[in-house]
Amino acid sequence: MLRFNCDYSEGAHPKVLEKLVETNMEQTAGYGADPYCARAAQLIKSKCGRDDIDVHFLVGGTQTNLTVITAALRPHQGVVSAHTGHINTHETGAIEANGHKVLALPAVDGKLTAQAVQDCYEAHVNDETREHIVQPKLVYISNPTEIGTIYSRAELTDISEVCRKNDLFLYVDGARLGYALCAEDNDLDLPALARLCDAFYIGGTKIGALFGEAVVLCSDKIKRDFRYIIKQKGGMLAKGRLLGVQFAALFEKDLYFEMASHANKMALLIKAAFKRNGYGFLVESTTNQQFPIIPDEILAKLNEKFEYSFWEKVSADTSAVRFCTSWATEPDAVRQLIEEIDKYPPVA
Amino acid sequence: MLRFNCDYSEGAHPKVLEKLVETNMEQTAGYGADPYCARAAQLIKSKCGRDDIDVHFLVGGTQTNLTVITAALRPHQGVVSAHTGHINTHETGAIEANGHKVLALPAVDGKLTAQAVQDCYEAHVNDETREHIVQPKLVYISNPTEIGTIYSRAELTDISEVCRKNDLFLYVDGARLGYALCAEDNDLDLPALARLCDAFYIGGTKIGALFGEAVVLCSDKIKRDFRYIIKQKGGMLAKGRLLGVQFAALFEKDLYFEMASHANKMALLIKAAFKRNGYGFLVESTTNQQFPIIPDEILAKLNEKFEYSFWEKVSADTSAVRFCTSWATEPDAVRQLIEEIDKYPPVA
Amino acid sequence: MLRFNCDYSEGAHPKVLEKLVETNMEQTAGYGADPYCARAAQLIKSKCGRDDIDVHFLVGGTQTNLTVITAALRPHQGVVSAHTGHINTHETGAIEANGHKVLALPAVDGKLTAQAVQDCYEAHVNDETREHIVQPKLVYISNPTEIGTIYSRAELTDISEVCRKNDLFLYVDGARLGYALCAEDNDLDLPALARLCDAFYIGGTKIGALFGEAVVLCSDKIKRDFRYIIKQKGGMLAKGRLLGVQFAALFEKDLYFEMASHANKMALLIKAAFKRNGYGFLVESTTNQQFPIIPDEILAKLNEKFEYSFWEKVSADTSAVRFCTSWATEPDAVRQLIEEIDKYPPVA
Amino acid sequence: MLRFNCDYSEGAHPKVLEKLVETNMEQTAGYGADPYCARAAQLIKSKCGRDDIDVHFLVGGTQTNLTVITAALRPHQGVVSAHTGHINTHETGAIEANGHKVLALPAVDGKLTAQAVQDCYEAHVNDETREHIVQPKLVYISNPTEIGTIYSRAELTDISEVCRKNDLFLYVDGARLGYALCAEDNDLDLPALARLCDAFYIGGTKIGALFGEAVVLCSDKIKRDFRYIIKQKGGMLAKGRLLGVQFAALFEKDLYFEMASHANKMALLIKAAFKRNGYGFLVESTTNQQFPIIPDEILAKLNEKFEYSFWEKVSADTSAVRFCTSWATEPDAVRQLIEEIDKYPPVA
Repeated sequence: MLRFNCDYSEGAHPKVLEKLVETNMEQTAGYGADPYCARAAQLIKSKCGRDDIDVHFLVGGTQTNLTVITAALRPHQGVVSAHTGHINTHETGAIEANGHKVLALPAVDGKLTAQAVQDCYEAHVNDETREHIVQPKLVYISNPTEIGTIYSRAELTDISEVCRKNDLFLYVDGARLGYALCAEDNDLDLPALARLCDAFYIGGTKIGALFGEAVVLCSDKIKRDFRYIIKQKGGMLAKGRLLGVQFAALFEKDLYFEMASHANKMALLIKAAFKRNGYGFLVESTTNQQFPIIPDEILAKLNEKFEYSFWEKVSADTSAVRFCTSWATEPDAVRQLIEEIDKYPPVA
Repeated sequence: MLRFNCDYSEGAHPKVLEKLVETNMEQTAGYGADPYCARAAQLIKSKCGRDDIDVHFLVGGTQTNLTVITAALRPHQGVVSAHTGHINTHETGAIEANGHKVLALPAVDGKLTAQAVQDCYEAHVNDETREHIVQPKLVYISNPTEIGTIYSRAELTDISEVCRKNDLFLYVDGARLGYALCAEDNDLDLPALARLCDAFYIGGTKIGALFGEAVVLCSDKIKRDFRYIIKQKGGMLAKGRLLGVQFAALFEKDLYFEMASHANKMALLIKAAFKRNGYGFLVESTTNQQFPIIPDEILAKLNEKFEYSFWEKVSADTSAVRFCTSWATEPDAVRQLIEEIDKYPPVA
Repeated sequence: MLRFNCDYSEGAHPKVLEKLVETNMEQTAGYGADPYCARAAQLIKSKCGRDDIDVHFLVGGTQTNLTVITAALRPHQGVVSAHTGHINTHETGAIEANGHKVLALPAVDGKLTAQAVQDCYEAHVNDETREHIVQPKLVYISNPTEIGTIYSRAELTDISEVCRKNDLFLYVDGARLGYALCAEDNDLDLPALARLCDAFYIGGTKIGALFGEAVVLCSDKIKRDFRYIIKQKGGMLAKGRLLGVQFAALFEKDLYFEMASHANKMALLIKAAFKRNGYGFLVESTTNQQFPIIPDEILAKLNEKFEYSFWEKVSADTSAVRFCTSWATEPDAVRQLIEEIDKYPPVA
Repeated sequence: MLRFNCDYSEGAHPKVLEKLVETNMEQTAGYGADPYCARAAQLIKSKCGRDDIDVHFLVGGTQTNLTVITAALRPHQGVVSAHTGHINTHETGAIEANGHKVLALPAVDGKLTAQAVQDCYEAHVNDETREHIVQPKLVYISNPTEIGTIYSRAELTDISEVCRKNDLFLYVDGARLGYALCAEDNDLDLPALARLCDAFYIGGTKIGALFGEAVVLCSDKIKRDFRYIIKQKGGMLAKGRLLGVQFAALFEKDLYFEMASHANKMALLIKAAFKRNGYGFLVESTTNQQFPIIPDEILAKLNEKFEYSFWEKVSADTSAVRFCTSWATEPDAVRQLIEEIDKYPPVA
């Protein structure tokens, strides 16, 4: 069975693992107060081109989202999100469990627009009974989105401007940030994110680390006492250096981006195979997640040898599914998948 | 200025107030452990035709909703509600502040359907990743709804059956319950509610009390330790007997229903006046809230003498507004309003 | 049975009730946006000698405490309180239910000292692992305390200075504030409270109102969006004017203080009776709560005619109990109680 | 610098790390639904001698505590803990942030007694105003305690009986469980824990894993939907197998206990050195944490070469500090430390 169902089927990239092995017997201070975390934070600050940002390392994505959002909001404030946003759909209500409503807006291709954010803001402040309504305060977007699409520099700039004008925080969930930044049609980079956002994270779990997310805090309000919140929410790793060692390995050279580029390249090969066989897609993606719409009959056949993720029913006898690549995806596995796709008669 | 904007512009019905004055100097135990609360609870049990239910008295609606829902749910469980549900729109995120996501479903005329609840339940249990998704556990409906429509016995029975089949709680927000039960097309009553629901409340604030809601608990799971939860959430009134005295006055005879009937009657006169002048309505309501769609120009004129609630823009130059009546609405005030409506040329 | 068990056995002072009756049929805006609340707020500002404070009206004490504290704190911050503080003992964990730890300090005679607050603050900031510990941020004191003692101007000033020096909020629970301010040995007043505290409340429920607490906010940080928090926590009364009408009645003239003075006077008569019969006291109180230590045998006798509150066992056969007076306490009832006390042989 | 300040200074035991390296490139399902977690769970069930228990793997201790406690309690319920309990002192209010009060009881040598739990329970149920007080529902103990002491079989049995009699949950924080079970004076084992407790965890982070805690759930009430709660609280690791691989390595043979025994042995050597030089101890510990009381002057000298944890001031010029050993503690490092201790003149 070859797994294309997600980008966290294997352990870590060998170069990352090697560093963990190499440093295993060293003694360091706990809870992230070690030289490896310091080094990794410095590397990320450099890549972001700013020294006045704070970098923290957490273990996983849901943990990161709930920690940042909890740090940013007062009790009556809510999070504006695409209805497809991960916090709105796949975190078992973690944000609500911390007291905050997710104000889900309809999204196109998984993306929020600056206009939708502005409308949401205005609807609130113009409502005479606004004290009876959750106050929008933080805008949450994912880049790439949960369905593989990416934000352009223009789109992110527009959203950022709406946020600053209206005193809203802008937070980017970058669980798969590398895939976005390495997409062929991308025009964003880390310095732009650090300039346009109040907080974002650079996902490691889904791009070559055993685990780990690097949170970048730009807003002084969110920075304050952030480590207390990490600890309270259960996210402070005793052997915190494990995160520093990994992120140093990812960013010492360009390993993080090399892995993301490889995964994107593999994904585009798969996409091309489905395309030339006439398959439609749920959405146009240029990153490591592809969502072809496939007759259920063919899906059953593909499933004999390949693992994918079911996404949603599209019609009575077709479904959208996710094929996902990663740093670990072997070109040969992709070749086998494409051969299999090519076996079936092209769809209308 | 004559107020038709809501049903809580005045104090209490004189007969209710009289009882408060009459009993003012008596000494009783605090926190609801007094003979008046006992008497009022007994009256409500009788009206519900069941003795195995618990009745508690709280001060307001949001407080009641958050207390009941908090008592019923474990942390990972959520509330299914119409997207127009009061808890989803006008309680400043009180449910989320207590840790629970509101799973808002599209609603027609403000109402949930049994089918929509069943679909929501199935979508959850059939999802392989359901542990990553909030578990639907309690169904919240309002009767009448936030836009004045009511549930029929058949509709409520269907929803109740879906809930019992799937081990979901059914809870009815009855902030304006009297208006529903006294509507001309209603076929529900208190015994039916006590049989079909796990919890519901009989609203006093909006029907003739100074304040107060009577919560009826039918499910043993929700009953357990309920008074701890009332206290923790800040809803336990020191002079709790004030609630008992009022609800005894409302239910000793049929004052509660007489007031609701009066308000409905007044509302239907207003409705008829708008209808015969060609106005459309946001929704067909037979209760004390009416939502005519009115040209903004005429609205401005009406507003010189009458207060109403803005509801929503319908087109560039028309708006839906709410006219609301109550036990205190004077027939003469309604007559004046109708006269004013009749002054303007009928709309297309 | 004559009740001396608490100060909320009756309804409202007749002059307060009269105002509710008088205004009952008026139509006003809801949720506290009415002229009565505006008037009452203005009166309280005048009594405080400051116009730059915000005044809000809530229904009860636990509700008020949880609303103010929630508005003031970030998630990792806690409340410093005497271990005997009401929030630490008798609110069913309302503060914790809103996410905040109560950092209970040993107290003498129910009171915190400036030194204890300073020590608590220093222990935190000097701890190298302080991120693993709740950050003290708000100091909660009750005046009078839960056992009837009061803070002097010097004591409150000292605590206030420690708070300001260390960027802590100071909040005074004034559920029985009137009794403190009218005690014979008191040297505090409303202007001093408004100057020394960040927030406090003037309790109405226990001093002559049907219900209601007037919250005074001095800190701009707590003021911000406070009405959202009231609503979210279930404390926004639909017919909010009921609170305004009552507090206007209490403060239009000096009714509030007259009632408190009467209660204190009655309490001191009871105290004197116990004293001259040789009874000891749990604490020296000059307010409306007295805590004599009484042989259980005598208690049983007293209880045939008088209600008091059990407080705690002091020895195998004696208990401390609470005798509590109020605006409604009849001199004749006190006379009867004293006669009864005098019937028993003096204790050693 | 030789670190004796904690037991998480290094990475993982080489045999654990080796397994991670060995399995790194395998593809498995995520979120703990992999064969390694299944295998590790089975091993732990065997060691516990029960098959009707659930085993889950989480990343860290605070996360584990808050997840188990949240799963077990309703909103008005609290946790009984020694005042020195980790949840009460060093988790930044994580339990309160999830809504529950920690009911801290005075403890002797870091331990709760059955009698103290019984008294706490009775004080609650016998209080007439108990609805105003947090309901004790779960008893939290740590074994070994935060200061290295251990519970005997008799002590744990007594506490368990009190819990069962009163319908309280018993939960054991086993962050360092191995050190307790391998102490020379221990008479408990895993089957006893699985029989006497409703939940406990076997700590990996502090005994040879990179990270990870194995939670054992015995109570059906806590078992239910536990994975939803793990996810909501941010504790579900994407590459969950990393936990399974490690715990399989720890329990396939007796590595877990071998490491703990080694650490205890090293600690007792240090203890003996301090003892024979006349030093007192904060507490009598037979596990890997030792708390000698040392003149500050000597501490400063020791600190030139050795890292320890400051614990508390004992007198003006002496302090209790913690010396902590682990699987990784080299006998030679201990030898150097002892040599250093022996350099100073014995204390009185």
